[in-house]
Amino acid sequence: MDLKTDERRRNLLRVGLLGFGTVGGAFAEVLAASGNADVRITHVFNRGVERKRAHVQAKFVASDAVWTERVEDVLESKDVDVVVELMGGLDPAESWLRAALSAGKHVVTANKQLIAYRGAELFELAAEKGVQLLYGAAVAGGVPVIPGIAQGLSGERITRIIGIVNGTCNFILSSMESGAEYGAVLAEAQRKGYAEADPSADVDGWDARAKLCVLARLALHAEIDPEQVPTQTIAAISAIDFAYAKELGCTVRQVSRAAVMDGVVSASVGPMLVPTTSPIAWSHGTQNMVVTSGRFGGDVVFSGHGAGGYPTAVAVMSDVRAIAERSVQVRLPAKKMKVVGDVVAPHYLRFVVGDRPGIVAAIAGALAKYGVNIDSLLQHRGHPERRLPFVVTTEPCSSATLEKAVAEMAEMAFMVEPPLCLEIVVANDPATD
Amino acid sequence: MDLKTDERRRNLLRVGLLGFGTVGGAFAEVLAASGNADVRITHVFNRGVERKRAHVQAKFVASDAVWTERVEDVLESKDVDVVVELMGGLDPAESWLRAALSAGKHVVTANKQLIAYRGAELFELAAEKGVQLLYGAAVAGGVPVIPGIAQGLSGERITRIIGIVNGTCNFILSSMESGAEYGAVLAEAQRKGYAEADPSADVDGWDARAKLCVLARLALHAEIDPEQVPTQTIAAISAIDFAYAKELGCTVRQVSRAAVMDGVVSASVGPMLVPTTSPIAWSHGTQNMVVTSGRFGGDVVFSGHGAGGYPTAVAVMSDVRAIAERSVQVRLPAKKMKVVGDVVAPHYLRFVVGDRPGIVAAIAGALAKYGVNIDSLLQHRGHPERRLPFVVTTEPCSSATLEKAVAEMAEMAFMVEPPLCLEIVVANDPATD
Repeated sequence: MDLKTDERRRNLLRVGLLGFGTVGGAFAEVLAASGNADVRITHVFNRGVERKRAHVQAKFVASDAVWTERVEDVLESKDVDVVVELMGGLDPAESWLRAALSAGKHVVTANKQLIAYRGAELFELAAEKGVQLLYGAAVAGGVPVIPGIAQGLSGERITRIIGIVNGTCNFILSSMESGAEYGAVLAEAQRKGYAEADPSADVDGWDARAKLCVLARLALHAEIDPEQVPTQTIAAISAIDFAYAKELGCTVRQVSRAAVMDGVVSASVGPMLVPTTSPIAWSHGTQNMVVTSGRFGGDVVFSGHGAGGYPTAVAVMSDVRAIAERSVQVRLPAKKMKVVGDVVAPHYLRFVVGDRPGIVAAIAGALAKYGVNIDSLLQHRGHPERRLPFVVTTEPCSSATLEKAVAEMAEMAFMVEPPLCLEIVVANDPATD
Repeated sequence: MDLKTDERRRNLLRVGLLGFGTVGGAFAEVLAASGNADVRITHVFNRGVERKRAHVQAKFVASDAVWTERVEDVLESKDVDVVVELMGGLDPAESWLRAALSAGKHVVTANKQLIAYRGAELFELAAEKGVQLLYGAAVAGGVPVIPGIAQGLSGERITRIIGIVNGTCNFILSSMESGAEYGAVLAEAQRKGYAEADPSADVDGWDARAKLCVLARLALHAEIDPEQVPTQTIAAISAIDFAYAKELGCTVRQVSRAAVMDGVVSASVGPMLVPTTSPIAWSHGTQNMVVTSGRFGGDVVFSGHGAGGYPTAVAVMSDVRAIAERSVQVRLPAKKMKVVGDVVAPHYLRFVVGDRPGIVAAIAGALAKYGVNIDSLLQHRGHPERRLPFVVTTEPCSSATLEKAVAEMAEMAFMVEPPLCLEIVVANDPATD
């Protein structure tokens, strides 16, 4: 009897929670619903802890848990086995998690920025201390992309990852499909709580870029510097682009893409044209999707709810469960690799010009000068002559070369606004795409 | 130096391979390409081993490996740490794997029948012996559904799984979408090697049923008897059903479905109508797809190549990698549950009748007698009067009740062939489906 009680005590996993916001509260609820008697929240750190304690989800935390505004109470406690970090940001999260790992505590985090920028050192520290650092919630929230790759595709040689990993951008772009303009949809997203007051992290691609780097380390075994990954804002996309994309059998999505070849990673984040027959085009609303392309098994698609309190809490809970089960994640070694933004692909160029003779000749001439071949030229009727949009698609060409041609074209006197240049995503695996 | 060599020897994982067919050969190649120096195939068992040894993929097996026709050479060898079983079938695979586990060897298997029918006892034996029994290749081959659920959704309360898990049926049905008849497409599938000479295991649903039971244990924590799961053959599906399905915004797929409620599992395998907007309709050709529906995170979609040597070998290799890394899979406890075939759903009824007055009245009367409401009635022109197909869809009703009505209708004199009754799959998660 005594032995059993002892054993139970030994097997109890005590969780110190940093952050009792949307995800933290949902985690407490999911844990309570799981019936996992061997996992217990013993500490909760948050600013304004009395207000948090009055939250409806606080009832899912055991009544004898310590609620504190001093993070040291959690990090230095002998009664915490795993620190669950749900605060986000690089600083002070990094120093807190370093302290937790150094103290021999496991860490579960949903912090994509931290894992993207400081993951390599943190994994090393965790290995040194013999503890686990799990981050399944850092990419695509409730979609088990990270454990799926780590445990289920460790035997694959993945050469490309391509994903829709920012729900806000996907909501905006999939809403624009029906004809709405960017500004109106962004305002709606802000009203619905999908987009921040300052939407830059989402629409300019910084959030997606961090997630792409996390995925690249795991899937491509490539440690890359987020700052080296070119990003392009979705703010330049207009309703007219969806109309032209449709004509090309495509739609527009914020795509995060990385491929490894000869020890170099080609990567970028931004709006791209995606064939409507590709899985990438399937995701609507705030959904996330990641497609891995492997040398042996072809394309694998993971899809579902990327964000939100409950989906993210499911990922956190699954990581905590793994630690409770002493299930050590498969380690996939990564090495530092250089990023090139250049990619050989067909491209979509959209111009808005003041109509006059010789425009097509000028543009075609600039492209020809750089050896870029035109695939198609599209022009819809019904636009004013002084703001005439038209589209050129190119045959596969180097994006870096094309950029030079675009820079020259941007200087042409008839351009009413800067030309928009988007990559057209090409299917990798004919059986899937 | 000596220490290092010793350590290396200790960390070497020695694989005994049972079966050097399509998957076995691909596994040897994938292992060789992985550069995993800590995993080595030391034994290969197969009948006609000399012929196997001459196979082009035999070169991926180390030259000092033992090739044998005596399975005991593998099962009893002290130089085998993990037995990889790629033979299939219940017997003799079960006794072999029991022997391997009893001898303290880890087991990796792609054998869905064995895991479906004998999994509970085998997992118990493995736990007792302190070894791992991994089976990631048993369902959906190269798609990491099993590790994805075990490691990434252990924190979720999954209430429903629905999948396309038989590539042969999916090839046949997705080919029939373009108007071909069942017989012709089956013959083509047989020519291409997608279907066996005796296609029963695929088209009648036995293969999918085993996979569904494997998934139910893991995702729904429900140990169910495969024999209790009703299956329906796809052989009764005709080109005309695709035409009607299209009119209803649907297509036809072999769907494997299980949901748990109040400790009872509702499950079935067979052709069903699937809305074209549902992820389930996305899978084409031999692709597999599994959708889990969770209480907290909503729907998660896994998709990719279900079968074939290389995709399956990736799953096997990933399991072997996990064992090499001492990554113990999260155990999700399952308990025995009863299966009911009955489901409340809208249904599709297709009749072929010899035209005469009063047919619709008779059918409507039979449905009304059992309290089943008609949702729509469809009839295309251009069919001969003596073989007139027409379709009735019902509002949601109990399939068991509907079966009684269908049994009565089958006896009606104007029926030229037995009525076809298919479930219409309803979306669970509006954001995904």
